[in-house]
Order: sequence, then structure tokens, then C-alpha cells
Amino acid sequence: MSEANARPAGETSSGDASPPRVVALGGGHGLHASLSALRRVTTDVTAIVTVADDGGSSGRLRRELGVLPPGDLRMALAALCGDDEWGHTWSEVVQHRFRSEGELHGHTVGNLLIVALWELLGDSVAGLDWVGQLLGAHGRVLPMSSVPLDIVAEVEGIDPGRPHELTTVRGQVACASTRGRVRSVSLIPEAPPASTQAVKAVREADWVVFGPGSWFTSVLPHLQVPDLAEALVTTKARRMVALNLSPQQGETDGFRPETYLEVLAAHAPGLGVDVVLADRAVVDDHEQLSQAAKRLGGRLVLADMGSDDGSPRHDPDRFAAAYDDIING
Amino acid sequence: MSEANARPAGETSSGDASPPRVVALGGGHGLHASLSALRRVTTDVTAIVTVADDGGSSGRLRRELGVLPPGDLRMALAALCGDDEWGHTWSEVVQHRFRSEGELHGHTVGNLLIVALWELLGDSVAGLDWVGQLLGAHGRVLPMSSVPLDIVAEVEGIDPGRPHELTTVRGQVACASTRGRVRSVSLIPEAPPASTQAVKAVREADWVVFGPGSWFTSVLPHLQVPDLAEALVTTKARRMVALNLSPQQGETDGFRPETYLEVLAAHAPGLGVDVVLADRAVVDDHEQLSQAAKRLGGRLVLADMGSDDGSPRHDPDRFAAAYDDIING
Repeated sequence: MSEANARPAGETSSGDASPPRVVALGGGHGLHASLSALRRVTTDVTAIVTVADDGGSSGRLRRELGVLPPGDLRMALAALCGDDEWGHTWSEVVQHRFRSEGELHGHTVGNLLIVALWELLGDSVAGLDWVGQLLGAHGRVLPMSSVPLDIVAEVEGIDPGRPHELTTVRGQVACASTRGRVRSVSLIPEAPPASTQAVKAVREADWVVFGPGSWFTSVLPHLQVPDLAEALVTTKARRMVALNLSPQQGETDGFRPETYLEVLAAHAPGLGVDVVLADRAVVDDHEQLSQAAKRLGGRLVLADMGSDDGSPRHDPDRFAAAYDDIING
Repeated sequence: MSEANARPAGETSSGDASPPRVVALGGGHGLHASLSALRRVTTDVTAIVTVADDGGSSGRLRRELGVLPPGDLRMALAALCGDDEWGHTWSEVVQHRFRSEGELHGHTVGNLLIVALWELLGDSVAGLDWVGQLLGAHGRVLPMSSVPLDIVAEVEGIDPGRPHELTTVRGQVACASTRGRVRSVSLIPEAPPASTQAVKAVREADWVVFGPGSWFTSVLPHLQVPDLAEALVTTKARRMVALNLSPQQGETDGFRPETYLEVLAAHAPGLGVDVVLADRAVVDDHEQLSQAAKRLGGRLVLADMGSDDGSPRHDPDRFAAAYDDIING
């Protein structure tokens, strides 16, 4: 089943025999946007998802049942759902959140379904593949590690009176919403085991895409999983960094576009980058960002990807067009 | 989708063009056993299920979210699941119950899935049809009413010191576990609306099967829903009563086989019965039960249906063989 799921038939924008194999790294809404665009560009998408969430429904499930936090995995699966009534309906079901005055309030049905499959099958990847099958997913969703993780951040200037003092902050929610400036992230447990399927997908990929998404809590954690980081550095795949449309409130307040690249390089010595994709509207100094891309070995590609409503969200068609130019162009 | 689901292709034990249309009435484990047998006898099964449960996961969901209690509906769907790996796996998933020290403890995944579909679609029958599709169900499962119900029982002798005093007991759990003798049941709200699809299924059936199951809380409530009761009395279908293998602890303690028929007749004036199916091992006075069946217009059929382990459970093969003799014989 896994193989069928990993190589779905269906839509393609490429006339070639073999579609490009694209691996997307991230979590949360950024990864959802990236997958919603990538599914229009290739039929062979694999998402590798952070498993460090400790908030909301995922945090509660993790604490109550000792499982991986399922929420980011669920959201990635929903982004890849089938195009027909079946796929759309089950996608809505797994994304459905209970609202009440009681104990179920805030829980998302897909999280509960994924956790039930994990408990039944005792295998996180097999459980996700079953939900992928249910949704008729156009691609595969994998956890970056087989164990639940905690993010630890070194944060500067939490106390405005001591702007250069470093504080250690633990937990994805706390890190993502800190009032200080995040300097670096690491994981607990240190050097966690990678998902073997995720490592394999990176090794066999044609393209690996970092971001967009919460930089410190969704994109960089992958580089703290040793076997995954090694695969990301040594894979023959081309590497793309998709920058955010706007700084993340909290963890990347005040970041310039090139700051994202500097932070990425600091967390991944030896990681080359082929393409840096940025939205034209957020780049005020083209030359400076282009130089930063060059320092990583890559070229800068600018595109118009924002939505017309002015929100900091990617327009799926424009985002897909930008990916298509780079991957299939 | 509903039509496809109501008329599944697949296994059949009849060589005729059109399989017998069988409607099974009940709830809980009795209905599960009946459906597990009926699916081997015909490809056209419709379950009509009580919606008065107020205990366990169903009771909690009903109180928290104001929905129909889903548990008996879920169990009926699981009994009809597809024969392949897909059907068996999703059946196990929907039957999976969380165990923890926390808020999810005791909730069954299928209950949460059904409720989510109800919230999304706003239509209890459509939601159940979607879960039926997911399971590849060999038949259709319908609620007997479109609104949640409470069972009210008149119970005699709850206080051992006053053995003839009648007490009114409310709620399925309280009624099913009473220490007194249940004399009659009614519903709150009185005269609830029937599921129109359930009424239609009864009118179009070839056979209608009452029981086995908790007599007062799973079998007789159908007769307190006016439109459904009228359809059950006037349908051209043949009617079968499948008696229990043993008295239900609590509500039918000390019942003789013919007592079930007397209670049924008292709750459904005008209801004719064609066949009374009883296990040979529980009938000590054949003549007395045969006479009771005759008074309802029917004949008594005895069969060996118990499991070899001596538990008061039906053996699915033997139960199916007994149904087959009556329905296809």
C-alpha cells in the first residue's frame, strides 16, 4: 500500500515519463501551502514533517497517550487529498474540529483517527499511509522522527532590561511565541532517530524544498535529526529554500530575507542551496539577498506569490507557477 | 451514494436474481450478532437502530454535543464491514477505544468519526452512509428516529420490601440495569419522528427481524415510534422474532421464552408474527412457546445457535444457518 501511495497516479503538469520526485520539509500552515502548490507541479510529493508540537489538540494527545503530535501530519495529508468528492469530504472530516463546552473541545477528528491507527498498527508510517489512502492523497506524508520531540531555543532579550541576555526556552509553543529573538534551536532528545522512510525519500529525491513556515520551529528542526541532516547535505537532489512572505510574529520578528538564509546556514554546516525562492514584494534589496543566496551556492528567483487580499498567505496558483518554473522549467 | 450502499454487490447465498430484502431491528451486541449472521444470508440488509443510549462514550457525546448517541449505529456498521483488508482495518479503527488516564478514555474512534460527519453534513443518514462507504459495508445502517431519545420504564419491585410497587425509571442504562422487573417502556419525547428512510425500508422489506437483544431497551423502543410502528404493523414483509439465548441480567431476569412474546404483543397491538426463532437449548417447554407463537399468528422454529464455549452468544455460522433456512429455505 505504501508504494501505491508514494507513487500516485493522476494529475501531472509534466509530459515526461517520470515526474520529478519532490520532498517538502516543514510543518503547520507553511507546509500546507507548499504542498497545495507542489501537488500541481508533480505527482510525486513526499512531505517530511516536524513532530515537536506541544500545543492544542496535538499537545493534549501527546501528553495523554504518549504518541507523536499528529496535527502537522494531518494538515499535510489534507493538503494532498484527492480531487474528487470522496477526497474532499474525507479531508473536511479529518480537518473538522469539535467545538463544545466539554472535553472534546478543540480536538480535530483527523488527529484522533491518526492516533487510533498508530495504537492499532504500532507503526507511525503505516498509520499515516492508511489515512493517505483514505484521502486518496496525491503523495506521502512522513514524520521526521519516530519519537516525539521537544524544541529548545536559545532566546536573546526576553527581558527588555537585559537585551543581550540569553535564555533557554523549551517547547514549540513557547519558542514560537517568545518576545525575545531566537538565536538557535536544538532538540530534546538530542540526536533523535530519523524516520528511515524520510531519509530514503531525501536520498532518492530530485528536489528538496525547505520552507516556507515557522523558521525555527518547523523548518530548522529537520537539520537537528542527524541521519536526516546527513541525507539532506549529501543527497544528489537539488535544494530549494522557499522564503516566507512575512516575518513570523514572535520567533522571526524583524528578520530580513537574508537573515533566514544566514540562520539556515548556521544550523546546517555544509548544506548547499541551489535556488532561493522569494516573493518580489518582500525583497527591498535584491542585491543583498542575491549575494546571500550565492554564499550558499545558489541563485535567487523572485516571483509574485502573495494573495490579492494582502494577507501574508501564498496564492496557490501563483505559488505553483513559481515552483513549476523552477522544477519543470 | 446511499443507493449504492443500500444495494451492495458481493456475496450472496441465494441463486435468485433479487436477494431478499431484510430489515433488522435492535441495538447493541444483539443487533451486531444478528447482522453478522444476516450478511451471510442476503446482500440486502438494513439495520434500524435504537438511539436512546445514555451511557459510555455515546452518552458523553450526546450530552456534550447534542447529537444522536452513535455507539449502537457504529457497532452495526462494523458488523457489516467489507471482507477485505480495507474493510477489516477500518472496522478495527472505528471500533478502537482509547484507554488512558485522561479525557479521551473510553471514547470509541468510530463514534467521534460519525459525530464529525453529522456536524459537517447536518444529516444523520448521510453521515452513516459515508461511514458505510468507508467500511465497504454490506448493507445500510439507519437510526430509528432523527432525534435522541430517552427510554422510560415502569419497573415493579425495585424496593424488595414493596414487591408490587411501580417505579418510573428514566434512561437506558438505568432501565437495563434495574433490580426490579420492567413492565413496559415508553419514550421521551413521546411519539418521536421516525427516520423516513427507516420507514421506507420496512415498507419495502421481504423480512423484518426483531431481536435478539436487550428486549425493553433495544428491541421494543422501535414500536414506540409511531410512523415506524405503523410501518411494522402494516408492511407486507414477513416478520420474525429472534429470541435471546438467555435472559438479560437486569431488565429480563427470570423471563421465560414466551414472556418475550407476551411483552412484544403488549407493546404492539395488531403486530402479526410469522416466525419465532428460538434456540433449542433454552426451550424447556416446546408446546407452551409454540402456543405463544401461534397466538401472534406464527410458527415456532427451533435451531442450535449457541456457541460451543457455553457463553450466551450466538455462533455466527449456526445463527446464519438458522436464518438461511427461514429466509431462503
